[in-house]
Amino acid sequence: MSSQTKVPRGLYGVSVTDSSIAKSDAAGTLIYRGYPIADIAAHAGFEETAYLVLNGSLPDRKELEAFSGALRRRTRADARLYQLMRELGVRAHPIDALRTAVSALASIDDEKGVPDQQASIEAKMSVLAANCHRVPRGEPHLQPKPELGFAASMLQMLTRETTGEYDRWVFERVLIMYMEHDLNASSFTVRVVASTLADPYAAASAGLSALKGPLHGGANESAMELLLEVKDPDKAAAYVTKALAEGKKVPGFGHRIYKKFDPRAQLCKGYLQEMLKRRNKDDSLYRLCARLEEEMAERKGLPANLDFYAAPIFYTLGIPIPLYTPIFAASRTFGWMAHYNEQVAENKLIRPDATYVGPVDMKYVPLAER
Amino acid sequence: MSSQTKVPRGLYGVSVTDSSIAKSDAAGTLIYRGYPIADIAAHAGFEETAYLVLNGSLPDRKELEAFSGALRRRTRADARLYQLMRELGVRAHPIDALRTAVSALASIDDEKGVPDQQASIEAKMSVLAANCHRVPRGEPHLQPKPELGFAASMLQMLTRETTGEYDRWVFERVLIMYMEHDLNASSFTVRVVASTLADPYAAASAGLSALKGPLHGGANESAMELLLEVKDPDKAAAYVTKALAEGKKVPGFGHRIYKKFDPRAQLCKGYLQEMLKRRNKDDSLYRLCARLEEEMAERKGLPANLDFYAAPIFYTLGIPIPLYTPIFAASRTFGWMAHYNEQVAENKLIRPDATYVGPVDMKYVPLAER
Repeated sequence: MSSQTKVPRGLYGVSVTDSSIAKSDAAGTLIYRGYPIADIAAHAGFEETAYLVLNGSLPDRKELEAFSGALRRRTRADARLYQLMRELGVRAHPIDALRTAVSALASIDDEKGVPDQQASIEAKMSVLAANCHRVPRGEPHLQPKPELGFAASMLQMLTRETTGEYDRWVFERVLIMYMEHDLNASSFTVRVVASTLADPYAAASAGLSALKGPLHGGANESAMELLLEVKDPDKAAAYVTKALAEGKKVPGFGHRIYKKFDPRAQLCKGYLQEMLKRRNKDDSLYRLCARLEEEMAERKGLPANLDFYAAPIFYTLGIPIPLYTPIFAASRTFGWMAHYNEQVAENKLIRPDATYVGPVDMKYVPLAER
Repeated sequence: MSSQTKVPRGLYGVSVTDSSIAKSDAAGTLIYRGYPIADIAAHAGFEETAYLVLNGSLPDRKELEAFSGALRRRTRADARLYQLMRELGVRAHPIDALRTAVSALASIDDEKGVPDQQASIEAKMSVLAANCHRVPRGEPHLQPKPELGFAASMLQMLTRETTGEYDRWVFERVLIMYMEHDLNASSFTVRVVASTLADPYAAASAGLSALKGPLHGGANESAMELLLEVKDPDKAAAYVTKALAEGKKVPGFGHRIYKKFDPRAQLCKGYLQEMLKRRNKDDSLYRLCARLEEEMAERKGLPANLDFYAAPIFYTLGIPIPLYTPIFAASRTFGWMAHYNEQVAENKLIRPDATYVGPVDMKYVPLAER
């Protein structure tokens, strides 16, 4: 077609929409609605940040209470969602179980006439995420304690123990940092689905489909497996040498946007160090991370990303590894809904073109003559 | 970012990839792998066309038998998938039920170690589509008869009666025409998900999420409701006048690509006329469609699209209206898998940019001071 504009595959550097939700750039900047991530992480709570990401401004006390209250009220998931996860069987991938439950939630909320659909999805995603590994395996489901707040309620389900104040604070920071990251593959998927004017359940379950892919989700889990494999900080250099020689990707390094510096990773690095110090625990996990980071920077010029430092934090908190990506999903759900709303508010169906490079003028030949 | 390229929202006319699967254009052309849709519709069977769309060439007898055999063998769905649909309750939207089942299929196939995942999705989608309305409503599920072939097996489930040869032929034509349409919103969703290297179940369930939206799926159902509402061909002009005066969209008209002529609609128009003639049936449904088409062309310059003429065909065949979009989905699944494979074969993560237009340099203010 003569009027066709051709853009590079993968659309990197191609702006497909205006957005006022978040901005990340190669220099290592990340802002949510104008606020630098470091400022938010230092001061704000999870619900406060979620309100900001969704609504564009920090809430006052009344707005915050209304928002948090809606989440609290919508937390409990129908028993059928757990029944359904159980039917998936003991081998079910956690993200598949989570996606199936969120997909089913569309019908169950509709049956109940739930008015605040997005709050329902946001609130239940964290509970379903905490249960998406254990329930298919036949273990009883865990109940949230919404009165603790979003992050602390989630953490008690994930660790099944009472955690210290600093640990809860750090977990909440990591959740905040996973919340939003402009047009990452899952948020873009959400926008494409939203552009058909499909409902938020359709959009959220499609977001989970994108997170299933190893080029998007799963990196925090792989990073932790790597850390457990290498274990000894003194073996970091040898590991990197070997991995690079074999052409293997090292999980937790490199980012489509952050070429030199992921601001979230650096914040998490500090939290990890402090967490281990407060526990009077051997700091070899921290030293291992720092060494791997150094080696990768020197030899490949690749910075550690959020997944690389979120993983050892989750591990130190005692969270089972298969839940790392579901945690990411639970937090990113708020970003997804922000993108859903921004897309729908000024909608245009997302329907790109392809350049046809296949054969033309073919003529059907009957089967008998082929 | 200075290196950013900005493209129009909705990406219409923006080529995001090369593709050799299908090509549609404003002039009313549609080719599958180089073959005009009219040629394919006149001669080819469903499985033959699916093979073509997936593999790029028409199969010989041996290839066709291997492909059809794989579909036949993978047709039967695990009882748990029906159980799960039943749990969604009587109000469940058919596409939600279908999406939940396909999402769950990921775990169930994995448990069974199913090797040909795509054949499993393709084969079961048609059976689950036929069951996605009745099963949540508590009716027993229908079994396919794979030995009849893909289209005829599906049709016997949808109508629950033995249909004549011409009816079966027409239904197969309509399925063929729903199969593929380059980068429509659901196929693009599938490609974004595939670009994260997620599995085909993740991609297919995300495709269903996009079809849930009224700007993509659902139009054949709305078109039929319109036809039933207007009923009398002599009332077509008055209906259009009123709808246009009220600024209402008339379902089944207009298309993002076909500005003047949807080749599939014109083929279906002929089938509809012939079907009614062969039944010695009152042809007022055909005349109603033709009159509405004329009125819309004259007054709005909008052509009837595939959905507009597929609807009265499905209706004449006795298929319940809530199954029209699930039928679309079952056929489009083959197109989705073709896009999945093309994306993965030469993959690049789809991760566009947005132009940030929100505030900058905001500084956190404590809650007490807001």
